[in-house]
Amino acid sequence: MRIEGSKEATPFRESVAAIPSLSAEWREKAQARLNSLTKPLGSLGRLEEIAARLVEIRGEDRPRFPRKAIFTLAADHGVTEEGVSAYPKAVTFQMVLNFLAGGAGINVLSRHGGIEVVVVDIGVDGNFGEVAGLVDAKVRCGSRNMAQEPAMSEAELYAALNVGVELAAWAQKQGHTLIGTGEMGIGNTTAASAITAALTHRPVAQVTGRGTGLDEPGLRHKIEVIERALRTNQPDPSDPLDVLRKVGGLEIAGLAGVVVGAAARRIPVVIDGFISTAAAAVACALEPKVKQFIFAGHRSPEPGHAALLEFIGQAPLLDLQMRLGEGTGAALAMTVMDAAAKIYDEMATFSAAGVSEAS
Amino acid sequence: MRIEGSKEATPFRESVAAIPSLSAEWREKAQARLNSLTKPLGSLGRLEEIAARLVEIRGEDRPRFPRKAIFTLAADHGVTEEGVSAYPKAVTFQMVLNFLAGGAGINVLSRHGGIEVVVVDIGVDGNFGEVAGLVDAKVRCGSRNMAQEPAMSEAELYAALNVGVELAAWAQKQGHTLIGTGEMGIGNTTAASAITAALTHRPVAQVTGRGTGLDEPGLRHKIEVIERALRTNQPDPSDPLDVLRKVGGLEIAGLAGVVVGAAARRIPVVIDGFISTAAAAVACALEPKVKQFIFAGHRSPEPGHAALLEFIGQAPLLDLQMRLGEGTGAALAMTVMDAAAKIYDEMATFSAAGVSEAS
Repeated sequence: MRIEGSKEATPFRESVAAIPSLSAEWREKAQARLNSLTKPLGSLGRLEEIAARLVEIRGEDRPRFPRKAIFTLAADHGVTEEGVSAYPKAVTFQMVLNFLAGGAGINVLSRHGGIEVVVVDIGVDGNFGEVAGLVDAKVRCGSRNMAQEPAMSEAELYAALNVGVELAAWAQKQGHTLIGTGEMGIGNTTAASAITAALTHRPVAQVTGRGTGLDEPGLRHKIEVIERALRTNQPDPSDPLDVLRKVGGLEIAGLAGVVVGAAARRIPVVIDGFISTAAAAVACALEPKVKQFIFAGHRSPEPGHAALLEFIGQAPLLDLQMRLGEGTGAALAMTVMDAAAKIYDEMATFSAAGVSEAS
Repeated sequence: MRIEGSKEATPFRESVAAIPSLSAEWREKAQARLNSLTKPLGSLGRLEEIAARLVEIRGEDRPRFPRKAIFTLAADHGVTEEGVSAYPKAVTFQMVLNFLAGGAGINVLSRHGGIEVVVVDIGVDGNFGEVAGLVDAKVRCGSRNMAQEPAMSEAELYAALNVGVELAAWAQKQGHTLIGTGEMGIGNTTAASAITAALTHRPVAQVTGRGTGLDEPGLRHKIEVIERALRTNQPDPSDPLDVLRKVGGLEIAGLAGVVVGAAARRIPVVIDGFISTAAAAVACALEPKVKQFIFAGHRSPEPGHAALLEFIGQAPLLDLQMRLGEGTGAALAMTVMDAAAKIYDEMATFSAAGVSEAS
């Protein structure tokens, strides 16, 4: 499949404008049903919260997820020229092949959860040719080096955002009623930390971590590179797309588009760790209604993640010290969300089961 | 199925004595394989920790869980005469029927995780007659009122412990390689809090919560009843079985037996919330080697749970504010453990996938 993202602002802007406000009506219906099920009130905790939100988002009595997809968007980052990662840039390309062969973490956890992995080349620096299963949505062979210039031009930014919107539209056509975000891109914690510092007004050192495994000097260098990128580009914190364009990356822009597209279609979207949350944060900053449709899959130990979770107002479902990306945390969280939907759908009520209620 | 637990100490004591010490050899083999998989070192966090522990416990290269069971043990509690629960005692009986009909939370989450629910009447105050699917292991129609006398006699205690040991033996024969604990018993948070206070030397008020939903006066009364039970019975904190017998319950004793029986057979056992952890804590106090085989499924908001988790030295896998019991937290955690085993088994290595390693 080839997706050519439009370089114009209009399709993306239209999706943002189409995001609905949810009414309390479905939430109240959901709460009434949850309270009628054979368990002490509220005793399934966040499973009940998830179920109620799913009913509210889908606007239907028994939301189920016969088809689920995770979009794993891959791109390279010009900033790797500065030596910000423990791994060589070639790993982005190699890992895409690993995804397609089914051998990566995201493949294992998606098979476990009955989730389709959609692997998208939105900006890998390398030519895959014809490869079965890969969505070719390449905007550019890697973003530009943000330490020297904006990571993307305006046209590249919108092309990537529109790829994401089109992926969400495709998911809807395929009958996916729950989608997740994931990514692969050597260097992309550098971009995510830069976005986090800009959007949340925090010092770079506070929101920058070791990524795939930097040592102490490597971490200090990474912080210095991000500070330089912010000085060079002067992103405007009140303009989320300006931040994204100047210090983001192609896969991060694509995922921001996926989140917006999902919200516009009332498809709940599970975000993965630090990088995926940076993308979601841009979308939420642009249009706070996006928050209604987001579930934070898990908490990453990357130090910037907590700041982003606070920024988007979501408490993560899992905290398993995972920091792999690819969508792995979202995939595992989807199995919890599936469980929540089944609790809502399948549990017996007090009256049907003949169980006495609390006095 | 009828299980008649022996009233003698010997079978249980033999199981305790049979619990092995694990060697580091399998753990090191597991770590070497985890480090060879296509992901940054340690980046799957607790999934890697789980996988390594499973390899170590099972003593095999690729542990898998083709069959998984949760034992949901049901019993009544004489102490409900004191008015310690928001629900009438009859709910224990009614909920067993709900389990057998497949309508309870544990049924839904077990179907979700591909887990067999084994419902065991170890002490419900009521006669089920012949009911399909129920394991009849009744020791007594409810424990005695601990506010007035020991909850169990010596013979009842060992009968319940031996039921648990036999359940673990049955699980092994059936080919279950992962088991979980769960319970149903109106009044059993009262027993669990009493055990927690005795074993961890904490004030009753600090480890007692609202159970299924007590109000403030109800909670104060429950604390007072537990304090009375401890005064009346004077359990010896250095003798875990004395604590269990005097202020425990039949299902809690049964679950302590399940944990011991599983450990003796090198079957990893996932414990559920507050009450299941109280049972596990008794087993760990009796024989610290038990800790090697235990996984804490989730963190309950019941205030005593944190004290018990510290006591058994386990960090819970999930924290979803669940407080239903039945084994629901263990069931959901089993899906995470399954995922961890699959990661270990199915992920590609760097060399097989042709992916470059970190510099």
